[in-house]
Amino acid sequence: MAWQGIVDEYRSRLELSPGAKAVSLLEGRTPLVPLPRLARSLGEGVELYAKFEGLNPSGSFKDRGMTVAVTQAVHDGAQAVVCASTGNTAASAAAYAARAGIKCVVVVPEGKVALGKLAGAIAYGAQVVQIRGSFDDALLMVREASQRSALCLVNSVNPSRIEGQKTAAFEVVDDLGDAPDFLCLPVGNAGNTTAYWKGFSDELQTGRTTKRPVVVGVQAAGSAPMVLGHPVTDPQTVATAIRIGNPARWNEAATAFRESGGHVRAVSDDAILAMARALAQEEGVFCEPSSATGLAGFAKAVAEGAIDPRGKRVVAVVTGHGMKDPDNAMAGRPAPVTIDATTDALLREVER
Amino acid sequence: MAWQGIVDEYRSRLELSPGAKAVSLLEGRTPLVPLPRLARSLGEGVELYAKFEGLNPSGSFKDRGMTVAVTQAVHDGAQAVVCASTGNTAASAAAYAARAGIKCVVVVPEGKVALGKLAGAIAYGAQVVQIRGSFDDALLMVREASQRSALCLVNSVNPSRIEGQKTAAFEVVDDLGDAPDFLCLPVGNAGNTTAYWKGFSDELQTGRTTKRPVVVGVQAAGSAPMVLGHPVTDPQTVATAIRIGNPARWNEAATAFRESGGHVRAVSDDAILAMARALAQEEGVFCEPSSATGLAGFAKAVAEGAIDPRGKRVVAVVTGHGMKDPDNAMAGRPAPVTIDATTDALLREVER
Repeated sequence: MAWQGIVDEYRSRLELSPGAKAVSLLEGRTPLVPLPRLARSLGEGVELYAKFEGLNPSGSFKDRGMTVAVTQAVHDGAQAVVCASTGNTAASAAAYAARAGIKCVVVVPEGKVALGKLAGAIAYGAQVVQIRGSFDDALLMVREASQRSALCLVNSVNPSRIEGQKTAAFEVVDDLGDAPDFLCLPVGNAGNTTAYWKGFSDELQTGRTTKRPVVVGVQAAGSAPMVLGHPVTDPQTVATAIRIGNPARWNEAATAFRESGGHVRAVSDDAILAMARALAQEEGVFCEPSSATGLAGFAKAVAEGAIDPRGKRVVAVVTGHGMKDPDNAMAGRPAPVTIDATTDALLREVER
Repeated sequence: MAWQGIVDEYRSRLELSPGAKAVSLLEGRTPLVPLPRLARSLGEGVELYAKFEGLNPSGSFKDRGMTVAVTQAVHDGAQAVVCASTGNTAASAAAYAARAGIKCVVVVPEGKVALGKLAGAIAYGAQVVQIRGSFDDALLMVREASQRSALCLVNSVNPSRIEGQKTAAFEVVDDLGDAPDFLCLPVGNAGNTTAYWKGFSDELQTGRTTKRPVVVGVQAAGSAPMVLGHPVTDPQTVATAIRIGNPARWNEAATAFRESGGHVRAVSDDAILAMARALAQEEGVFCEPSSATGLAGFAKAVAEGAIDPRGKRVVAVVTGHGMKDPDNAMAGRPAPVTIDATTDALLREVER
């Protein structure tokens, strides 16, 4: 039977109004890609996988939650949705609003959104509003706007978003036969950490798994409120998707780290970009910088002796596709050479 | 059981050396997305689907063939692969070469490759060589270079590529339970037409289907050698992926059109861009311009009375993700407005 998408595949395990008709782009069922070379660099007997969420329809994990949120919104009679976004939520909300035939308004910090994400939101027909302010400002604005108007809020403060996103944990369990020993992932607004922890907790409760993973959350050093223990007013990082100074799901994510025996830590932008490069060049997995943050932080924890992964199974959540951010993908790489259209010139260039 | 990717899922149905170890990124198993709004615009009782190949690992259908071609190349001892490309083949070859740990050289026409594709090839670590010439020039160069060196050619003149790409037809049959009545797709180098026809022919032979689809191939009007009946020396179109003046698989594709009762036709760049917009804004499927070409041509054929699709099942092959070409996604759309970070300003903007 053909794959039905998140809502219809997992309906019995989601909080969703009965009878709500799915608004779906057949999201989910993303590959769990083995990373054998990077596993070896982490230690003996490490089994390492990337849950490659960049292969969802709009190019990021946001689609899992958005299909549920927009399904619920349309069931409740919404004619328009609104969200604040660093880019991925914008593209996803725009895609599902287009699918539902309703209006979408996305609010993004001016000049801080990767090209491929802005292009997506615009292509899907959303009203894109840039603000002279941060993501955190935008989130405050759309929360208030949704209370003062008929706009339905689809940020991850919307519980349907978490419901949908928890299905990624179900899929990891489907593929591995149990929960992994470790889960590492980037932490921005902290909704995804909340969702994975809910998903793995559901799985343990239903007896499909024997354990829950140790959760290691990673923030960019210039945007690390949960590591510092206080909000950051002007977060700065090349990992634009997690450039968030005051995570909306702070408490839930903190609970996940604590209950799992894990922690939250920070890595430098250089380490993030180096891991993104390693994922693409050593394993063939091309992701946006933010998406490499979880594994970059995990590798740092291993290098520092804070984690011993030997003989363990590790899943790194890779949240968005590299095509989202072509400028960062090319930054610092040698520019392509240009030659005349002759085979001799080509062979000379290859042997250079 | 977890999805194994094209080589291991379909090994018994592929021409491939026995025992060749798969070089895989878990490509394939892409969604067949219903397009209900566009179906209604085509006529009564039309069932229309997009085979959304943009959700393969490097963002296009090329990954299906590339996993087989690189698997075979590595089995044969290749240390390096080479291809000519308008962009998608480059990104795909670079991804699978990275996965295999071998060198990749891609040759592209200077200034004619969409940003997201170039970024991909560079990110995966390929040697990107731009030429002062066309795709057709590049293909001649790499064919000769592969004969004069140890570089293994992985363009679709490589039969392994067609083997892999035919699996998309298998998946369509899996999802629909039979072949569709019509298949429409863009035609560039004509390898994909060749591959789908082979796949559907295999399915009919093994008795899994009752028929083969009528195949409607579509070229951009400024790059339509098969419609004109002769090569085009300076092809021009916004659909850069099919900007090819002398298709390598011309004869095979012509056979597919003839045997299926279909044909090849041309559409304007305006019609291509309008269909790309309709796919994103009406159905939530964001593709690069080339990928909308098949459906744009099919809709034109219906409008002209050349095809009567009423009551029929139609599959449109959507070859690559819209993130591949952010510049064209935003071209001609209103630029986002910028406002102060206040809820009042936002609500005023929304109601404008």
